[in-house]
Amino acid sequence: MTTRFYYGPKTCALATHIVLEYVGADYEAIKLDFRENQQRSKEYLAVNPKGRVPALVTDRGVITETPALLLYLAQTYPQAKVAPLDDPFALAEMQAANSWFCSTVHVAHAHGPRGSRWSDDPAALQSMKAKVSKNMTDCFDWIEEELLRGPWLMGANFTVADPYLFTMSSWLATDGVEMAKFPRVTEHYKRMLEMPAVRKVLPLHGM
Amino acid sequence: MTTRFYYGPKTCALATHIVLEYVGADYEAIKLDFRENQQRSKEYLAVNPKGRVPALVTDRGVITETPALLLYLAQTYPQAKVAPLDDPFALAEMQAANSWFCSTVHVAHAHGPRGSRWSDDPAALQSMKAKVSKNMTDCFDWIEEELLRGPWLMGANFTVADPYLFTMSSWLATDGVEMAKFPRVTEHYKRMLEMPAVRKVLPLHGM
Repeated sequence: MTTRFYYGPKTCALATHIVLEYVGADYEAIKLDFRENQQRSKEYLAVNPKGRVPALVTDRGVITETPALLLYLAQTYPQAKVAPLDDPFALAEMQAANSWFCSTVHVAHAHGPRGSRWSDDPAALQSMKAKVSKNMTDCFDWIEEELLRGPWLMGANFTVADPYLFTMSSWLATDGVEMAKFPRVTEHYKRMLEMPAVRKVLPLHGM
Repeated sequence: MTTRFYYGPKTCALATHIVLEYVGADYEAIKLDFRENQQRSKEYLAVNPKGRVPALVTDRGVITETPALLLYLAQTYPQAKVAPLDDPFALAEMQAANSWFCSTVHVAHAHGPRGSRWSDDPAALQSMKAKVSKNMTDCFDWIEEELLRGPWLMGANFTVADPYLFTMSSWLATDGVEMAKFPRVTEHYKRMLEMPAVRKVLPLHGM
């Protein structure tokens, strides 16, 4: 059975998509049209009842949630050396970055387009949208000054955390934040843009 | 150097605290008083500039973020067998649960006490608080029906995801949700309460 990868353009699935290409995985990418709400279709809910992307359908079952998928790919393709698998402390540092991306940065961004998850009041949704730019700026101040070691997020070696950072960075314009305010993040973004795996995947996301 | 573990009572640090006890780690637990805002004190910000808990200070540096800490402890104490370390697919399933706990369940809960992270409008904070109970109910419906295999979250074997689920379950009352509506979650919670590690840690959290 071919591994199937479900994604929505410009969603956080971009991170896993880049890593699938980078490690040379044999997979079929299936795009869901979020404007048509395909992530809530009966067919897709049979794959991932959470109605979210990304989802990877493997021989053994479905894997969801970006940090889980990134570590899974690193372990499944050890020759690609995209995570410090044999060093629990270094791996914990990488996992801490990925956990923070999903629980804090992605959530800060989501209060723009997806505020209705947390409030039903239209005025509240507006007030959440109004704070997205400040919250994303705070997150990227932290990335610029503390988290991003350079040239890659974790230092000398490219890891699965880099496509995840790249994905968060790609949201800044939508969130009303100028990437140029963060020179080291901008440099990282440009470095990612030069990677063949990134060049191959971006057009599939309309980027 | 003794490993130091920083926590706040009844925060998500409870999950890591239980695992530290369970694996028999040699560590010193340091309680921060959140009512006194000690997590924002100069002393603590020198440990964890994010001003959050948990944080584990090891010989090699500081580890933050619950999913990262849980995997780190599983890898550092392999004899405790608290994660399927040699099975990437099974590990991905566990990591998916932990990622979802931090990015979705914890975030759903946080809109009660911590809504000011995402809006400055008092009316919006009220509308967020009003939706916490529904969102936590939705999360626990999913846990009850899909995620919790029984007797432990991942099935036959206790893993680090169990103290994390236990921690989320312990917030239900505050969030206005009756745990009894979820019989399998309730059974899991009671099973956890019988564990010596849990019995030792709960009083330190005023529970």
